[in-house]
Amino acid sequence: LGKSAKSRIRRLGFQRERALVQSLWKLGFACVRGPASGSKTRRVIYPDIVAMKEGTILVIEVKTSDRRKPIYIERRQVERLKEFARRAGGIPLIGVSFADGTGWKFVRVEDLVKTRGGNYKVDDEVLAKSLSLRDLARIADKSHKLDEYLSS
Amino acid sequence: LGKSAKSRIRRLGFQRERALVQSLWKLGFACVRGPASGSKTRRVIYPDIVAMKEGTILVIEVKTSDRRKPIYIERRQVERLKEFARRAGGIPLIGVSFADGTGWKFVRVEDLVKTRGGNYKVDDEVLAKSLSLRDLARIADKSHKLDEYLSS
Repeated sequence: LGKSAKSRIRRLGFQRERALVQSLWKLGFACVRGPASGSKTRRVIYPDIVAMKEGTILVIEVKTSDRRKPIYIERRQVERLKEFARRAGGIPLIGVSFADGTGWKFVRVEDLVKTRGGNYKVDDEVLAKSLSLRDLARIADKSHKLDEYLSS
Repeated sequence: LGKSAKSRIRRLGFQRERALVQSLWKLGFACVRGPASGSKTRRVIYPDIVAMKEGTILVIEVKTSDRRKPIYIERRQVERLKEFARRAGGIPLIGVSFADGTGWKFVRVEDLVKTRGGNYKVDDEVLAKSLSLRDLARIADKSHKLDEYLSS
């Protein structure tokens, strides 16, 4: 890919991420977006999006899929995502944005398939087990109700 | 203040914020920093720092104090901070960085004093009730233990 095609893809990804934050906000989440990849603050572990609702924390790393081939994710990136979620007490997720504009799917880190090289991939089988935006809201509402139940 | 003095102060504030994130990280928190003030993403409500530890969420707006006069905070900024924390299920705090380099204090939003104009201020009396970095870690550890207690 040429430089301008790459920057166009990056811009598109950025716009989709912003749209996701707006959707999550409408579902009642408070969201924070990490700085763009490659920026200096990236030295610290930093997920793409953190979405919080009444104490439930979703830690999201964003990837784009063209639906033709699996998404490969470096082991180190998955480990960082898990470490951030472990500290926060949150749920680590891979947010998959489809290049054809058909919305988002969210893959639980434990559902990722390990490759022979020790990295991870998201294929059709993994996507079949993924969560929708509505599922994320339900998870947050459920843990909230659980808290209320436990403290009453 | 001239333009270069202002940009020097901004840079200093930025460095202190980064140091705070590193301290919070050492205390076991996962942290996310918001984009710099004035950037486009500021259209959405966006606190300076969100620090999370095992489900406890601290939502922090950062201010600098020269210890000579109170810090004034616009009502709208406090309302946005509270709204973000309400959605997240977190604790809204004003993080006060002292210009003389003597560290940080954290003011609970409910301890802020309302001015006659409807805005808020942090004066010496408010600072006397503020929390230290260690206090923040204790709050996070305590709520974690409480959760364990409730679910056992």
